Order: sequence, then C-alpha cells, then structure tokens
Amino acid sequence: MAVYTHLAAEELARLIAHYDVGDLVSAKGIAEGVSNSNWLVETSEGRFILTMYERRIDTADLPFFLGLLDHLSEAGCPVPRTIHDSAGDAWRMIDGKAVALIEFLPGVSPTSPEPGQARAVGSALARAHLAARDFPRARPNDLAPADTLAILRQCGTAALHGIDTELPAIFEIGAGILRKWPEELPQSIIHSDLFPDNVLMLGERVTGIIDFYFACTGAMAYDLAVTHAAWCFDARGEQFDERLGRALVEGYEETRPLNEIERSALPLLAEGACLRFIASRAQDWLDTPEDALVQRKNPMDFMRRLEFYRAAGQSAFA
Amino acid sequence: MAVYTHLAAEELARLIAHYDVGDLVSAKGIAEGVSNSNWLVETSEGRFILTMYERRIDTADLPFFLGLLDHLSEAGCPVPRTIHDSAGDAWRMIDGKAVALIEFLPGVSPTSPEPGQARAVGSALARAHLAARDFPRARPNDLAPADTLAILRQCGTAALHGIDTELPAIFEIGAGILRKWPEELPQSIIHSDLFPDNVLMLGERVTGIIDFYFACTGAMAYDLAVTHAAWCFDARGEQFDERLGRALVEGYEETRPLNEIERSALPLLAEGACLRFIASRAQDWLDTPEDALVQRKNPMDFMRRLEFYRAAGQSAFA
Repeated sequence: MAVYTHLAAEELARLIAHYDVGDLVSAKGIAEGVSNSNWLVETSEGRFILTMYERRIDTADLPFFLGLLDHLSEAGCPVPRTIHDSAGDAWRMIDGKAVALIEFLPGVSPTSPEPGQARAVGSALARAHLAARDFPRARPNDLAPADTLAILRQCGTAALHGIDTELPAIFEIGAGILRKWPEELPQSIIHSDLFPDNVLMLGERVTGIIDFYFACTGAMAYDLAVTHAAWCFDARGEQFDERLGRALVEGYEETRPLNEIERSALPLLAEGACLRFIASRAQDWLDTPEDALVQRKNPMDFMRRLEFYRAAGQSAFA
Repeated sequence: MAVYTHLAAEELARLIAHYDVGDLVSAKGIAEGVSNSNWLVETSEGRFILTMYERRIDTADLPFFLGLLDHLSEAGCPVPRTIHDSAGDAWRMIDGKAVALIEFLPGVSPTSPEPGQARAVGSALARAHLAARDFPRARPNDLAPADTLAILRQCGTAALHGIDTELPAIFEIGAGILRKWPEELPQSIIHSDLFPDNVLMLGERVTGIIDFYFACTGAMAYDLAVTHAAWCFDARGEQFDERLGRALVEGYEETRPLNEIERSALPLLAEGACLRFIASRAQDWLDTPEDALVQRKNPMDFMRRLEFYRAAGQSAFA
C-alpha cells in the first residue's frame, strides 16, 4: 500500500487538462502498488487510475510496460489500456516523476480463490501469452534464478539465518535449480507476478490483469508456474490446494496446450518461481524496519512452497 | 493516510449484501482518514465510502457522528448521508470493529484555496451550524482549552523543548487564553476540524464537508475561528492571506451574521483553535517514530499562527 507523493488537487486538474477525458471530479489516493503511487481519478467522462512511478521503475522501461498494456488491450485481453495525452504521449512528467493515466477496470481481487476462478485466470494468462507473442518490444528478465541467487548472496548467510535458521539452505537448493534450469522453452512476454492481488474478478470472470511492472520476455510455462505457486496455497504456504492447481493448469491448457517439454519442466519452474519470491522477500524483509507500517512478507512462506514442489515433483501438476 | 486493516473481497461482498445497494463491483483502499480505514466501494448501483473505525473513535459516539451526517444531509447541507443496512442500522460490526457505509460525494480538496472557495466554505459552515441547531444529540468538546493544556502538560516541558525551544512558551500563553475564554457564545454542533482536506469542492462550489469525527457541541464562532486558522495561512503558518480571511468571514456572515460578542471574541477563539492544534500535533509528534511513513506535522506551524493572532487582534478579522 502506498501513496508516496502528495499531489495537490490543482496540480491534478492541470495534469488532467492535458488529456481528452473531461474535467476532474474526484481523486482519491489508493492503497495499491509498492513501487508507485496511485490515485483513482474520476472525470466528467469516466474513471481512471493515475500512476506515478516512484521507485524501482526505470522510465526507460515505460514504452515497454505501457505499450504492452495497449497491445494486450487491443487484442481483447482484460488489461487496462493507457490513456494517451493530447500530444499522443503515454506518460508525462510531474516534478521529475513519470505519471501515466490508465483505464479503470471493475472487479475485486479474490483472497480465497475458488477453482472456477483459478480456471479463468489460467485461461486469461494463456490468452495474454498468445496475444503478446507479436508485441514488438523485449525486456530481459532480471529475476531469473542466477539473479535471485545473487540477491540472496547480497543479503548474506548471517542475515538470512536471522530471519529463519532454515533459510540459508536456499543457497544449495538454488544452485541445484540453476544447474537444471531449462533455457529452450517457448517464449512470449510474461507477467511474472500474477498473484491474486494483480487480478480483478467479478465472480468467475477475469475483468482485469494489472500491475505488469515485472513483465519481461520469458518462458510462458514459467509464468504458469509462478501463477501456480501464487494461487494454489494458503498464505503461509503450508497447504497446497490441488483443486486450484488442477483448475489453473486446465484453464491454461484449454487456451494454450503445453508441449511435453514444458509440462515436464513445470515442477522445476515452480521451484524457480519460489526461489525468486524467497529472494525478493528476504531482501524486502531486511530493508524494512521492524516497526514500519508496511507489512513485511516472510520469505519462509515460499520456502515451504519450494519444499512442496521438490517433494511432489510432477504430481503437483497431475 | 491509512488502511489499517485488510478486508478480503469475499468479506466485503458479504458485508455489502446486508445493504440494498446492489452487487460489489470494485473496492479500493483509500489513503484518507487518520483514525479509520476507508475504501472507495463501487456497486452495481453507485459508489460509497466504507469506513472502518480503528482508533480514537468510541463506538458509543457513532449514533452522534452518523446521525449528524443524516441530519445535515436531510437539511440540504453537502454532507454525505449514512447508508443504513436492511435492518435499518447505521453501522455493523466486522471482527469487533464498527463499519459504516457512507455516501460518496464528488469533489477534490483545494490545496491552495482561492477567496471564492473560502467564501463558499464560510457559507457552507454557517448553513451547517444553522441546520445542526435542532439535532437532538449532544457531544461534549473534549479538546477545549483546558483539555488541550492538559495534553501539553502530559507531553512535558522537556519533550516540547525537544521539538522546538520556543514551544514551552505555550504553557503561559495557553493559561492566558484559558483565563479569558468566553463561555456564553451561541452554540450548535460544530465540525471543529474544517481543514481544506475535509472539504470537497468543484470549482467554487462546496460538494462535500467530510470527516466529522471531531464534531461536538460548541460555540459556532469558535468553529469559524478554527476554519480561519486552518484555511488562511501557508502551510508553515508564516503568511496570513487576508483575502482568504475576509472572504471566509463574509461568506459565513452572508448566511449567519455574527453578533457583536462573537465578533469581538474571534481573535481569542482563533488563539484557542491554534492552542488545540499545537497540543494535538505535539502529542502526535512525540507518539510518531521519526522514521514512520506517516508525515508528522510540526506543532510550530500553529505556534506561528497563534503569534499572528495575538499580534493582530481584531485586525485579523477586519
């Protein structure tokens, strides 16, 4: 949750005047996004999300991120399109920070997903993968296993041990994942972070896939594995819900069947997905003061998922 | 800014089902309110603010606060009405916390008000004072000068000195205010906290007066003095804008002329208003860790206003 910057109503009205969206009627800072500030903005013509890019986001990546939204939206995917200003630009600068006006989509993020919802998400993810294949831009994945292991090394064994005595085991497990990591899987642009938080739904219908700020070029099956790890467990990662797992993969394959190499790679890809979230959460845990208002996420929640995938192997995807 | 509690979409949908407002379409935690969590909720029938009372708010006060919204709204004041549930109740409980569904009002809060806006706010405040006179409930003001002096004593001279070496002078100044404090001014229910943040406007029209959680029985002229101190200075309290001050009082008097006793009391009432914000800000300053994400407000901003009113006397309201 975050609104890092105060944006005066007068400044907001001046900004909105650069777009062909009518007059400002309301603006509320919303508690979404970790690397940017967001406002739900209403004008005389509709509702929009105004995003200000604060941290972690490199402005040089905006043509990729915002262009991707437009590309997927034009292809009929439930993705918010970027509103371009009167000069045709997808973002503007305010006080040295980039801001973009983005379509508002209805829907709420499920906290306890049902299989019908997981199936719909699998299908929507597959459609986005297919639609993104002819997106003309590329962005390297900077959170592949080698990168996440580097992040963990930067954290240091002692600090990881301080979070949880079992956590340093990740170095050896991660090295094993890296050695076996498949490099030749079918590629597209992948979301890479499709937690329930990043999906808006009305009942069993996906009305929005949002927060593409980890999107990159990558293996489509890896994205499915990320989504599997993000959707199919209780919050602590202690309980796998096989109904959700099965529905998610079935939904995906209804739209885009996996090939044999992809299917057999899924357990390892899921281990890699867990490795990545262990690394980013460990880093955030160590960077966040204990008494901060932001809730720290314990990396052990994904250590448990990783152990599940290592033990279950192919049966996690049966 | 705050959303202190995570409210799952499923829980929100169950809550909304108790009201006759259609189905849940969207819900965004919004960065408003300091003593409660707020969501901007959209249903198939409209938009609403869902407020969860977290801190500082005594549930026993809810009949007063929520009844006041309905009373003022029925009288035609731009105040959000409370949506009652199917059983007719103005609030419900979730996990031991009270929640209320409140009308959404358009408008944005001015950051740099213009005289036309100050005039409209003065007039809206006077209308609310007149409309509240037959509100059947009462609530004592627990932030009168004697209370705020007690808060400052609780902070302690050393701690105040640590915030700013000039701050401890408030004890003697405050005692002087208390000695002269007028007790016989015309009363109604007063807002007591009408900063620009708590007013929604479209141009020069007041579309919403919000956040009545300091409302209490009190002197109407004191409320005007609070609003004067809150609207007519730059943020640091260094620069008084007499155009704003004059417009605010004129707007008020167009709707409800002050009597002679009220008018001559205004400078002292404004000093009392400053005393109150110095006390609450000093308390918050000392309670808030230096590295907290919440922005602490320096009590000295109101010490400067207080000094202005002491020096200017009646001329601040000429």
